[in-house]
Amino acid sequence: MDASIIAVGTELLFGQVVNTNAAYISRGLQLLGVDVLYHYTVGDNPGRMRDVIGRALSETSIVVLSGGLGPTQDDLTKEILAEVMGVRLVPDDRALHEIESFFIRIGRGMTDNNRKQAMMPEGAAVFYNTCGTAPGFALEKGERTAIALPGPPSELSVMFEASVIPYLEGRSGYAIRHRMLRFYGIGESQLETDLRGLIGGQTDPTFATYAKEGECSLRIASKRRTLWEAEEAVARAEEDVLAVVGHYMYSDSDEELCTVTARALVDSGLTLASAESCTGGLFASALVSFPGVSAVFDRGYITYSNEAKEQDLGVSTALIDKHGAVSGEVAAAMASGAREAAGTDIGISVTGVAGPDGGTAGKPVGLAWMAVADASGAITYKYIGVDKGRDGNRRLTVLAMLGMLRRYLLDRKG
Amino acid sequence: MDASIIAVGTELLFGQVVNTNAAYISRGLQLLGVDVLYHYTVGDNPGRMRDVIGRALSETSIVVLSGGLGPTQDDLTKEILAEVMGVRLVPDDRALHEIESFFIRIGRGMTDNNRKQAMMPEGAAVFYNTCGTAPGFALEKGERTAIALPGPPSELSVMFEASVIPYLEGRSGYAIRHRMLRFYGIGESQLETDLRGLIGGQTDPTFATYAKEGECSLRIASKRRTLWEAEEAVARAEEDVLAVVGHYMYSDSDEELCTVTARALVDSGLTLASAESCTGGLFASALVSFPGVSAVFDRGYITYSNEAKEQDLGVSTALIDKHGAVSGEVAAAMASGAREAAGTDIGISVTGVAGPDGGTAGKPVGLAWMAVADASGAITYKYIGVDKGRDGNRRLTVLAMLGMLRRYLLDRKG
Repeated sequence: MDASIIAVGTELLFGQVVNTNAAYISRGLQLLGVDVLYHYTVGDNPGRMRDVIGRALSETSIVVLSGGLGPTQDDLTKEILAEVMGVRLVPDDRALHEIESFFIRIGRGMTDNNRKQAMMPEGAAVFYNTCGTAPGFALEKGERTAIALPGPPSELSVMFEASVIPYLEGRSGYAIRHRMLRFYGIGESQLETDLRGLIGGQTDPTFATYAKEGECSLRIASKRRTLWEAEEAVARAEEDVLAVVGHYMYSDSDEELCTVTARALVDSGLTLASAESCTGGLFASALVSFPGVSAVFDRGYITYSNEAKEQDLGVSTALIDKHGAVSGEVAAAMASGAREAAGTDIGISVTGVAGPDGGTAGKPVGLAWMAVADASGAITYKYIGVDKGRDGNRRLTVLAMLGMLRRYLLDRKG
Repeated sequence: MDASIIAVGTELLFGQVVNTNAAYISRGLQLLGVDVLYHYTVGDNPGRMRDVIGRALSETSIVVLSGGLGPTQDDLTKEILAEVMGVRLVPDDRALHEIESFFIRIGRGMTDNNRKQAMMPEGAAVFYNTCGTAPGFALEKGERTAIALPGPPSELSVMFEASVIPYLEGRSGYAIRHRMLRFYGIGESQLETDLRGLIGGQTDPTFATYAKEGECSLRIASKRRTLWEAEEAVARAEEDVLAVVGHYMYSDSDEELCTVTARALVDSGLTLASAESCTGGLFASALVSFPGVSAVFDRGYITYSNEAKEQDLGVSTALIDKHGAVSGEVAAAMASGAREAAGTDIGISVTGVAGPDGGTAGKPVGLAWMAVADASGAITYKYIGVDKGRDGNRRLTVLAMLGMLRRYLLDRKG
């Protein structure tokens, strides 16, 4: 099967909004074994919409549209699609009921033009919207299928997962399952090299690697006759992958490193205090994005000046003078100092050169020393990153701190 | 004039890369008074590329392509475009020289296939690449113009500014200037309402408002016979805008609020210490993204627990018990406490309900109290945001702190 994706909306042609839906839908269709041949974007213009929709339906067996399902006059996707495919719009009682319920839930009055959103092409499979007002739908005609989805990415993705995937699975007679594994401490090319033996001859499951800032991911996907077979194939492939590179995997459910690390910290019950220099609070901020962390994260010190390092963390001027502020010795003293000042089980610290200035041959921009301290002392870790600009360096340094803390918690757990 | 934009690359159809080039080029063309009618994405497939390019050239007078100018076999944009437009590829000496220089500059050897990048359609206006190897070009045939640009967004944007804008200005006989004004403390709809009298009847300069998370922008653009006229028109329009909503404008050069505020702090010479609860270091982290800030930002306290507020900032348990941790009284005591502990000129603080839990009727999720303290005492500020999720609430709270600090520095300066 092949497909085209059409994004509808003049705001896209003005460049006010970046079309992220096309990439999202493409990834989803690819998992389902559908080849995406074209992306189109067209404005809210009846003539041009008619042309593009007609052309896409003549070129590919599936056409997925996003946007133009809203309540206003210039939302025309449904009307034009029904016209091109030769069906009329009829009221859908459940859609109307769901829209009414939505407005009651958010405590706002429903306007009359929202009724337009409950009109559906006759014979369409309707996808009800759990996060907004516009229902989506699939409409078949002969060998061709048009799928219309709401434009807001948050609504579109929920509807794609809940309705479009099962719909297309049902049509294809196949079941698809996939899993996204995330890795820290190994680069994408190393990951590919290590897994070459596994990935090489495989046609199902399929493997795809992705590089992200400072980390990488592996998607394992399987398309089989039954859901059970697809799930089994993915699970077995994951076991094979873990036997090779399991040391670096931190999530098999596409979670962020800060989420996994914060959860591990909460689960450990160990209280934590942080001391940051170059990252300026970014580590604490990443940890605090996890809701339950207040149970264990007591406080953080952003000791930007040497005076702050001395006064708040008890790091002596002599130590800084001897080794420099960016050194393993100072990182260890900061972590221990934070732990003692806060009276927590562990302390974590970082001191580095974020740039753009301040780098030297021995201590280049991108270098950071970090430490974890507990009752038995401090473990230090040297992180050397390629210079990715001040904010990039700070983000990569925070990832390294999260990786260090996660590893510490794993080792401690035994 | 009207235009189509074609992005070339199978990685876009796989959804591995989001097509940000189309939005970028659209904004640029709109400024030049060119209507963008279609975006297309097509893979590295000769037949489908030929179809899409031919179609786009028949529909619009300008076609801008991005991607497919690389040195490898599957980079075909130039070859297909030359074929469709009926011209041959000829070596361009300067392009070859620039590519050779590029490799010398980055200290890597040039491979033979990079020579392919120096072949240009005969008669094309060549755009030399200052950030990469692939030159771009414009090729005219009758009333039609095709413009080919490299795919990497960083190379594309530099070439667009340096070469495409002057090229299209030259063709149109017009000069275009624009300016992006940024506002905090006023919503997009209020901005539009306040400026209705100005924006209403205008055809040049044009005005366009944009909403971003927690703030909004206004673009003023003018297209005149001379650059001087266009610049004058934009400058006069900015004066008119400022007369109405100048109170809310923080940048007329599209800078971030954290950059503008951090620079104002550095310029003031006032030293600062911060005390954060709900934002967990995100305020300090935003400030620290400005390179020169270490001259004035001394330290930050992330006092997540009440014990930390008491031990590090001297906020008494009695005060917290009486007013609650999220209160103007506690915010004021935190800001004063941070200032005293650090011995800085000013202290800034925040305490709020980030969610998802912990909200009450009186103190809902999204509420934050913040304060600025100096030698004369503390000024508190209550921020009430609509709940945008834990991380959204934290980002909006940090914007409010930056807005408060900027306003304080302006008032103090008089």
